[in-house]
Amino acid sequence: MATVSLKQDPAVLSARLDRAAATAADANLDALLITPGSDLQYLLGVRGESFERLSTLVLPAAGSEAAPVLVLPKLEAPGYHDVPADDLGVEVVTWVDGEDPHALVADLLRRERQPSRVGVADVMPALHALPLQAAVGGEQALAGPVLRELRMRKDPSEVEALRTAGAAIDRVHARMAEFLTAGRTEAQVGADIAAAIVEEGHTEADFVIVGSAANGASPHHALSDRVIERGDVVVVDIGGPIPSGYNSDCTRTYAVGEPSQPDVRDTYAVLQAAQQAAVQAVRPGATAESIDAAAREPIAAAGFGREFIHRTGHGIGLDVHEEPYVVAGNRLELEPGMAFSIEPGIYQEGRWGARIEDIVIVTEDGVDSVNEQPHELVVLPA
Amino acid sequence: MATVSLKQDPAVLSARLDRAAATAADANLDALLITPGSDLQYLLGVRGESFERLSTLVLPAAGSEAAPVLVLPKLEAPGYHDVPADDLGVEVVTWVDGEDPHALVADLLRRERQPSRVGVADVMPALHALPLQAAVGGEQALAGPVLRELRMRKDPSEVEALRTAGAAIDRVHARMAEFLTAGRTEAQVGADIAAAIVEEGHTEADFVIVGSAANGASPHHALSDRVIERGDVVVVDIGGPIPSGYNSDCTRTYAVGEPSQPDVRDTYAVLQAAQQAAVQAVRPGATAESIDAAAREPIAAAGFGREFIHRTGHGIGLDVHEEPYVVAGNRLELEPGMAFSIEPGIYQEGRWGARIEDIVIVTEDGVDSVNEQPHELVVLPA
Repeated sequence: MATVSLKQDPAVLSARLDRAAATAADANLDALLITPGSDLQYLLGVRGESFERLSTLVLPAAGSEAAPVLVLPKLEAPGYHDVPADDLGVEVVTWVDGEDPHALVADLLRRERQPSRVGVADVMPALHALPLQAAVGGEQALAGPVLRELRMRKDPSEVEALRTAGAAIDRVHARMAEFLTAGRTEAQVGADIAAAIVEEGHTEADFVIVGSAANGASPHHALSDRVIERGDVVVVDIGGPIPSGYNSDCTRTYAVGEPSQPDVRDTYAVLQAAQQAAVQAVRPGATAESIDAAAREPIAAAGFGREFIHRTGHGIGLDVHEEPYVVAGNRLELEPGMAFSIEPGIYQEGRWGARIEDIVIVTEDGVDSVNEQPHELVVLPA
Repeated sequence: MATVSLKQDPAVLSARLDRAAATAADANLDALLITPGSDLQYLLGVRGESFERLSTLVLPAAGSEAAPVLVLPKLEAPGYHDVPADDLGVEVVTWVDGEDPHALVADLLRRERQPSRVGVADVMPALHALPLQAAVGGEQALAGPVLRELRMRKDPSEVEALRTAGAAIDRVHARMAEFLTAGRTEAQVGADIAAAIVEEGHTEADFVIVGSAANGASPHHALSDRVIERGDVVVVDIGGPIPSGYNSDCTRTYAVGEPSQPDVRDTYAVLQAAQQAAVQAVRPGATAESIDAAAREPIAAAGFGREFIHRTGHGIGLDVHEEPYVVAGNRLELEPGMAFSIEPGIYQEGRWGARIEDIVIVTEDGVDSVNEQPHELVVLPA
């Protein structure tokens, strides 16, 4: 529950606030109300933490004379001491138990005129969204579509943070032979991996999937008490945040000894080629859906189209899942700085599954991967 | 991010669903929409986890002929396999990417007639609350006031869970001499405590406050790189969930060697007497605010009224902070089964602070504490 602090350069944050205010104006919003979460971290360098007591950034849209205001419960204000409020021209207003923070925000929004349309953070709980609606009046809309326009284009410091996270999770995959052996349960292997995720530089293990044999054919399987056997194919999909708040997410598929299922080698070769083809298709101007198609076509051509049952990827940054989504129907044109996963899978229901996932970043003329572990099926000693 | 499962007795869950439906009807709500979180865990035994894809229980108020429906993204349905849906008469409806889950919920709500007022979970993010408002029409209200009427009265299995959590955190406090010594930073001590919280039976360390010397005078201070010195007074406030989902929360104040500040012993004696007086005031029929007053009066009488800067306590259960709040103005009459913290503190700004916290449960004729570590200032070897 601790407040996570990124200590961003104030000039970077200031530019983000200006762009958010401008994008809000373009979306016909009078202001944005950003409660604790990744959007707040993006704008102020602090994620925040409060739930029952309202904390929110009140950010007027471009064209307003009013300054941005950070509204905080007085008890929680120390958690925001890293916000460079003076440099950013952000006023800090605190409230104490017994005062009505929703009325306070309504008064702030009405400094110039009654707002007609206010954007609220996607993560704002109904506990605050409903009383704010009643206190402020006008229309509420989601702030997410405004913020995602900014957040999906990573700046150099964000790209560097994603590389740091990628290197950290690569080090965990490089140690897999320490953890993953026949005779252990998925849960035992997962507990060791979780500890290694922290040891290698993450603040926590956000997710640990160890899908052995038939469990690997269920993409959302996490861990179980199944004992891993010699010859199993095992999907290991792991990640978490590093101290800056940026996330890792990387999948490799392992065999514990030579695979016992006869179709593993040939099928895996199809998957590996598809993942490579999708990565190589990434460049500025390509659409998100064209990357999905680049992964899907070779898998379908080999007869496994029905066994690839999810989208090819998702954006990543301060959230593990964010825009852009690499999925059919998304005609977004890729731009330098966009970061997302490429993670096709082939799932043989009831028998085994495989997935290969890298986080890639669009460059000026192509693509870079933040993950550098080998893509081949890794055969571990049983 | 894993779905936490409580595996509650279906008869217990069934009774809770019935009472929630009845309480919703009393509150003039047509239905409740309960998204993943502690309310969902209370009603179905599963906390859930989804954010971007809508999962929600649609619970018609008493008097409706319609069955409750659990709406889930198909990919996430396996995480709910422990819900005894058949026993509870709950239909499960899944949706896949490309379908509109908010329209689906609106259709379910309109099975009998257009609803005029629907209660949404306090934790429901705006990402779902706003589209549901648009799709359903009518008025949205918070479901929290309905659910809190049920959740603040713990049944015997919940009391047992709180005792288990209390015993687990007591074992961590009993080991404090292993962690807390002069020459170590608060952060180093905190990391060891966090590991011990997990070792002693919690699923995670939800919060770890180690407030040494002047840091102890800031109630929301968590950890810092300050090096603990011989003679420091240190507030240690720690807790987390056990596998059933119920939480521990316990504070003790330690001295690292004999305290160097001359006023510690006398001031601490006032605090200890106040905490004891408040615990002894707990019985059915006493108001929540009378317990706050019982803690506050002896502290004020000794001249420290301005140094006790927060409420006396908060309810606890599936959330660390929930109803009832032990605070001036709360005239709620205590009933058997209510569980809350009693945690007065005295904060000498810039020098040192102290707090003593137990979780107590109202019994038929008085009170029981789930925490049993000594209340005296514990002087550890420096």
